[in-house]
Amino acid sequence: MSEHSKFLLADSQIPPVWVNVLPLLPEPLAPPLNPQTRAPLRPEDLQAIFPMEVIEQEFSPQPQIDIPGEVMDIYRLWRATPLFRARRLEKALDTPAHIYYKYEGTSPAGSHKPNTAVAQAYYNKRAGIRRLATETGAGQWGSALSLACQLFGLECTVYMVRVSYDQKPYRRMMMHTWGAEVFASPSEHTNSGRAVLSATPDSPGSLGIAISEAVEDAATHSDTNYALGSVLNHVLLHQTVIGQEAKLQMAQAGEEPEVVIGCFGGGSNFGGLALPYVIDRLAGKGPRIVAVEPSACPTLTQGRFEYDYGDTAKLTPLVKMYTLGHDFVPPGIHAGGLRYHGASPLISHLAQMGHIESRAYSQLPVFDAAVQFARTEGILPAPESSHAIRAAVDEALLAREEGKPRTILFCLSGHGHFDLAAYQNYLSGNLAATA
Amino acid sequence: MSEHSKFLLADSQIPPVWVNVLPLLPEPLAPPLNPQTRAPLRPEDLQAIFPMEVIEQEFSPQPQIDIPGEVMDIYRLWRATPLFRARRLEKALDTPAHIYYKYEGTSPAGSHKPNTAVAQAYYNKRAGIRRLATETGAGQWGSALSLACQLFGLECTVYMVRVSYDQKPYRRMMMHTWGAEVFASPSEHTNSGRAVLSATPDSPGSLGIAISEAVEDAATHSDTNYALGSVLNHVLLHQTVIGQEAKLQMAQAGEEPEVVIGCFGGGSNFGGLALPYVIDRLAGKGPRIVAVEPSACPTLTQGRFEYDYGDTAKLTPLVKMYTLGHDFVPPGIHAGGLRYHGASPLISHLAQMGHIESRAYSQLPVFDAAVQFARTEGILPAPESSHAIRAAVDEALLAREEGKPRTILFCLSGHGHFDLAAYQNYLSGNLAATA
Repeated sequence: MSEHSKFLLADSQIPPVWVNVLPLLPEPLAPPLNPQTRAPLRPEDLQAIFPMEVIEQEFSPQPQIDIPGEVMDIYRLWRATPLFRARRLEKALDTPAHIYYKYEGTSPAGSHKPNTAVAQAYYNKRAGIRRLATETGAGQWGSALSLACQLFGLECTVYMVRVSYDQKPYRRMMMHTWGAEVFASPSEHTNSGRAVLSATPDSPGSLGIAISEAVEDAATHSDTNYALGSVLNHVLLHQTVIGQEAKLQMAQAGEEPEVVIGCFGGGSNFGGLALPYVIDRLAGKGPRIVAVEPSACPTLTQGRFEYDYGDTAKLTPLVKMYTLGHDFVPPGIHAGGLRYHGASPLISHLAQMGHIESRAYSQLPVFDAAVQFARTEGILPAPESSHAIRAAVDEALLAREEGKPRTILFCLSGHGHFDLAAYQNYLSGNLAATA
Repeated sequence: MSEHSKFLLADSQIPPVWVNVLPLLPEPLAPPLNPQTRAPLRPEDLQAIFPMEVIEQEFSPQPQIDIPGEVMDIYRLWRATPLFRARRLEKALDTPAHIYYKYEGTSPAGSHKPNTAVAQAYYNKRAGIRRLATETGAGQWGSALSLACQLFGLECTVYMVRVSYDQKPYRRMMMHTWGAEVFASPSEHTNSGRAVLSATPDSPGSLGIAISEAVEDAATHSDTNYALGSVLNHVLLHQTVIGQEAKLQMAQAGEEPEVVIGCFGGGSNFGGLALPYVIDRLAGKGPRIVAVEPSACPTLTQGRFEYDYGDTAKLTPLVKMYTLGHDFVPPGIHAGGLRYHGASPLISHLAQMGHIESRAYSQLPVFDAAVQFARTEGILPAPESSHAIRAAVDEALLAREEGKPRTILFCLSGHGHFDLAAYQNYLSGNLAATA
């Protein structure tokens, strides 16, 4: 075991490939269904909104896919990201556990989201697309795609969930700085948005509604495609750089994680860290893997595993996943990036197979952990990522109770620089314990 | 010359010492004067507000001072910081120049300020002090000291310049999250603050006023010391890790900078990068060195080189420096960290000797450069740091005009995540061209 607390990789150690779990599954995923016909989706059904290279990745039988050089050039601006051992947090918890975290907040956009944003912008640029439309919750994904589009010379339109649009104005300004246009969703710019507004004029919005708006925008403009920041196989594929790097870094640290933890909204940072470890589990030797969600939007812990739409207006294919229902609108919690009614079909499938545990926390214990983390490790975490911190802390406290060591690895998916109003809310005692 | 764009160092390459220019000066600095007697200051005159180890560093004849292990343990949370070659910016400028930047925004507080905050908190903790009082402009320094105090178990009181307190609420919330108390300055908590408020009830505040309040707080409480984020010799000393690392990284890149650039407020990030190169110049072989300040607060370019107080209420010693007058209150520009009437006596002395050039820019060209940088290199820079970007861009454009290569190194002292209101102001065309 290393004496160090920080584990870095050289540029030459950034993984040259994304790793794909699909061909390793003992049973394949249930096929997505065409929303009109309910017949299994054909790849060409997606061509109105995605470029062909992305569609191929969505269904790819290849165990590895090369990362294009142009994408790697941009990854190198901030990758490899550091892995830390949280020695100060361990000490504060007086635990025999070793807590490691992979920190994705060093990207210019402040989270793991650019890992796939850059790849998607690249493939769309190659396909001759002029503009990308997308949704965003807290704004992590929207800012990542704004940056990626700027770097590849694409225009970018972001439908930002209303509650976050109002709570996090700095995220919106960041997207503007990178040249994107940003609408509060539900908006007057789409049929889907207008329909929601006419039924619920004061709707706080949801990712489901914002996805409908962005998909409609893309489907109705031939020079425009849609980009999704989570849920789909190709998105999780692009994120596997996280877990691949973490494995190299844990080897540097001379330890193997016994439990791997990520916060869970649609599944992108979670899958990014977890899938390379899922591959080990499928080979019979992996760690426990824990997905952590907000109790305000308990998709994995309380949803049903069934076919559902990815969006509110039923424009997307039907996919088999854990879902709270495509018309579920979660309360406006600060972890806006976790307010999604559904879940990655791949992660849902793996959870169903017993490879992934899930648990849910309310905001108050999550912010308790976030502030303890900020005051020991220094880094101010995003509310979303703080769900993973809470679970890691609880694993470490359990280790203390049991008087046994435990090696914990979690993904700190982003910083909370744009979430300080949430911290202020917590510090002034105004955070509802129930949400 | 390397093919790479990013130059990293291992933990073992973080410099083990701070380097001290004082003993190398051909002529010593003019001594600070006691504000009551105008006699040269004795070290013990400072004991009411500083711990003895810091006072010794302020006047140290040693060419190197070891970095204590406890400080190094915390430095390693984010140091060594990366050095980048700005290839995308070079391409956008179509310049033969090579532009390198040392990025200090990866610290938890988002700037170079923790380099000295951690050291000062450590020495004060060792001296048995319970609380530190300080001032802050834009909040970079205040948040760095809040973090450092939290890590060493000290309390922290921050007097934040009113205009920034209102412009940058997130900085204030960040300090709260790290456990500090924060007052808008001028405040009702000190005689100095009350005096300003009674004369000018709507004062926007200034660093000079906030320093008076913090010094008064420290001088009137025996368990409380004062910590300064810039100007003084010991502060610049602690920052020399920046330039020492940059030299190792430029060697990795296989280049020598011909011009070294930093933004200039009191002189801390500037000195941190420049002083190790000043040592080369004193030995007859260093690069050009350029300090960049806002035209709204043109200390080096338009100030007088004379004895003046460091604060508005004349509580600090008199130091010989470039100054606009201790009662100068600059307009409320977005680069709040550069709104200081004075300048580091050491940098002033070196400028007087001809080792340092200076130039001033107004806000509009600074934000032009900031946005171009954000859109090419990805990182969203602080308004303060963007002064250095502007000068680096101008050096690169000059190289293009002359058709000659030029190797440029600048300090990107911090990110602008808490300055997005300034960007929005710029993007919406509301930034006054004159300020």
